[in-house]
Amino acid sequence: MLGFPGVLLWRAELSSVFLRGTIPPPVLLLPRWLVPVRPRGSFENHALLVLGGRIAALGPREELLARHPEVERIWLDTHVLLPGFVNSHTHAAMSLLRGLADDQPLMAWLQQHIWPAESRFVHPDFVRMGTRLAIAEMLAGGTTCFNDMYFFPSETAQVAAEMGMRVSVGHVVIDFPNTYTKSAEDALRKAQAHLAGLRGSPLVKQGMAPHAPYTVSDGALQETAALARQEGLFMHMHVHETSQEIAGALERDGCRPLQRLARLGLLDSRFLAVHMTHLDASDLAICAETGIRVAHCPESNLKLGSGISPVSSLHRQGQKIGIGTDGAASNNDLDMLGELRTAALLAKGRDQDPTALPAVDALEMATLGGAMACGWEAETGSLETGKAADCIAIDLDRPATSPVYDPVSQVVYCAGRDQVSHVWVAGRLRVSGGRALDWEDREIVVQAREWARRIAERDGEG
Amino acid sequence: MLGFPGVLLWRAELSSVFLRGTIPPPVLLLPRWLVPVRPRGSFENHALLVLGGRIAALGPREELLARHPEVERIWLDTHVLLPGFVNSHTHAAMSLLRGLADDQPLMAWLQQHIWPAESRFVHPDFVRMGTRLAIAEMLAGGTTCFNDMYFFPSETAQVAAEMGMRVSVGHVVIDFPNTYTKSAEDALRKAQAHLAGLRGSPLVKQGMAPHAPYTVSDGALQETAALARQEGLFMHMHVHETSQEIAGALERDGCRPLQRLARLGLLDSRFLAVHMTHLDASDLAICAETGIRVAHCPESNLKLGSGISPVSSLHRQGQKIGIGTDGAASNNDLDMLGELRTAALLAKGRDQDPTALPAVDALEMATLGGAMACGWEAETGSLETGKAADCIAIDLDRPATSPVYDPVSQVVYCAGRDQVSHVWVAGRLRVSGGRALDWEDREIVVQAREWARRIAERDGEG
Repeated sequence: MLGFPGVLLWRAELSSVFLRGTIPPPVLLLPRWLVPVRPRGSFENHALLVLGGRIAALGPREELLARHPEVERIWLDTHVLLPGFVNSHTHAAMSLLRGLADDQPLMAWLQQHIWPAESRFVHPDFVRMGTRLAIAEMLAGGTTCFNDMYFFPSETAQVAAEMGMRVSVGHVVIDFPNTYTKSAEDALRKAQAHLAGLRGSPLVKQGMAPHAPYTVSDGALQETAALARQEGLFMHMHVHETSQEIAGALERDGCRPLQRLARLGLLDSRFLAVHMTHLDASDLAICAETGIRVAHCPESNLKLGSGISPVSSLHRQGQKIGIGTDGAASNNDLDMLGELRTAALLAKGRDQDPTALPAVDALEMATLGGAMACGWEAETGSLETGKAADCIAIDLDRPATSPVYDPVSQVVYCAGRDQVSHVWVAGRLRVSGGRALDWEDREIVVQAREWARRIAERDGEG
Repeated sequence: MLGFPGVLLWRAELSSVFLRGTIPPPVLLLPRWLVPVRPRGSFENHALLVLGGRIAALGPREELLARHPEVERIWLDTHVLLPGFVNSHTHAAMSLLRGLADDQPLMAWLQQHIWPAESRFVHPDFVRMGTRLAIAEMLAGGTTCFNDMYFFPSETAQVAAEMGMRVSVGHVVIDFPNTYTKSAEDALRKAQAHLAGLRGSPLVKQGMAPHAPYTVSDGALQETAALARQEGLFMHMHVHETSQEIAGALERDGCRPLQRLARLGLLDSRFLAVHMTHLDASDLAICAETGIRVAHCPESNLKLGSGISPVSSLHRQGQKIGIGTDGAASNNDLDMLGELRTAALLAKGRDQDPTALPAVDALEMATLGGAMACGWEAETGSLETGKAADCIAIDLDRPATSPVYDPVSQVVYCAGRDQVSHVWVAGRLRVSGGRALDWEDREIVVQAREWARRIAERDGEG
């Protein structure tokens, strides 16, 4: 249990490091229930030791209390301790467009509201403000890592690092000109230019994010894949989001989008396909053969009327699946507790089978599955010795989550984001008593309101 | 605006009544946005005057401030003021079985866990405790009225009246013996015996609740309907919950359940059909002809794999629809904000149409639609002069609900139950700052835990 090098580090010179503030202080977490995700299930009378920002030990409470009398203790008497959620598909900055034009036909929503607003306002300061708003919401709700796809990814990465949030940012590649890139070639140039600069931060990973099959040409897709392979990066792409996408591909390319991506050699275990709502037997076979990862975004798929992903079929054939909220413009929140609950309920409804996607599987998708979907699984997604201490505590001591027969069931089927009491990222406490420790939510809300005032003034001008 | 008699009452002798504590004090509510449901939409710079527990006036803020300088003012600067939610289908006491055995096949869940637990534990004290737990959760989440169906309905009604919650309790009629009734005849006798005793409380209505088509004989259904007509009561029944129910009816009765109920003369605008997941053209025609009310329980239908109700078809043909959580054993919460959001999202996903069930319609179902579904619409479900002051305030000043382009959209698509800051029932403040004013949640949680310990000990004994 003590084989972890962090312990040596602690014995040697950690205290001096604390003074320099580069490493969070050691702490012993003592929850009522420990749910590490791997192994599955929940454990009582267990504790988790954080040293140097990492999980140094997990084990019986009495044993860890005896071994580490010197370490600060945090008693979580009515709480479940879990790995932080990994939001496997976001457009964080779009939180500034949350609820701009709901309940409209898809094309009217995009062409008359979202795209005009983006072409007017999406610049680095918009991305920084929108990302700040998104991270304030996500951290408070127990999300400790997100996999983002948006313009100006360096801004997103910088804000995440500043706010202490783990992130994987995708360098968007899209043929069409936008406020960030003039063309796919320009996008690839910008990606290469930014790659080195973002390698420094321990909380930041990068990926390549070709937007979608219908917005990126064969040539650009192959160049993007080549760059990803050369740099050892994940690919992150919208795939099979709607039936129209598939119909269009059959007409244009003579095959379904997944078949085209397979033919182009893009599909392997480092490719993340987002949405995947319409899958026939041939699509499922391609998924199984290539081992691609899938990001399931049930609420966005429902709200936009895209369809319902056959997530239990993908799960049964062993696909690694993460859960994502998508952007707040089409959800309209970034609440992973709500999203994993919707995933668990919707799979049962779709299959008309109450045993489809049990709570324990939905929770694994929202944590370890998401980490596997964006290349962060060595560091986060489960509470295992040696991983970063990305942990959250959920207080079940409320009427809405009482009584507790099974803590995993209560977390998945009843707990609300307001019950997330503590959030640690890499061992540093970011949320306590449900409140952010490093910024004033009020200030973020006021700044977002000012942005919305300007955006609303121009809305509908087309 | 001042035609309401409450104003005279106020001028005359209200202050003396306050001293006797029978009527809540007058108050002027000054929200950022007023969403009365009827009329639809949201209004800024408006206020709501509560006199004698009723809505005495709604109007421009400045006008009401000038007219009522003497009345206490509650400023809700960042809040939406709405009618309280009406939960149109519950089994409140089953909150004590919340999460007892999730993710199991329906029959295993019922036969090996729920039914044995009910046969062992369902007695008046169980019903009182479970109802207390349910009401603590519902009131805190903005529900001010619920339509219940469970054994020992007099206990449910009494607890609701004690806790200041509006309720419609159904007198259950079921052929099979249970801890409350030996037979349908016994159930009808008990209903008649209790009817008079419950007429006293201003917060309590009663209905007749024949359990389901497959558990009540033709004769008992007709006697139940006759009693309901004679007493002027609503009927409340599970109908078309699963495809098996319909298959069984076709085999046993030679027709679909709705056709049988129509033939027996049960269906009219005072009949509430709960679930209604499987409806063909003939079923929809019966609904339209008879004007029956429908209670839509999307999360329970998903979780039990029952199916997905064609709620937008029902809505298009003008059916009056309420939204219900069902019991916590099959949901697993009583969160109406979550439920109406699921209803709005699921309708879009089912129809693959992002314009299906817009936010404003989902909100109307969760309030006025529910009131119409259980006979409370003259008193609650919308903020209209003369109705009881059943109001809730939701604070949108959080990152998760910022910015606000449309307050109705933010309430339906992003707001969490934790943002419900104030809850008034009949003008009496029951929740403030998100906390119940009349009891300690902690005590209810501890008592529920003790019940669960005893229930879990015997679980699985069959």
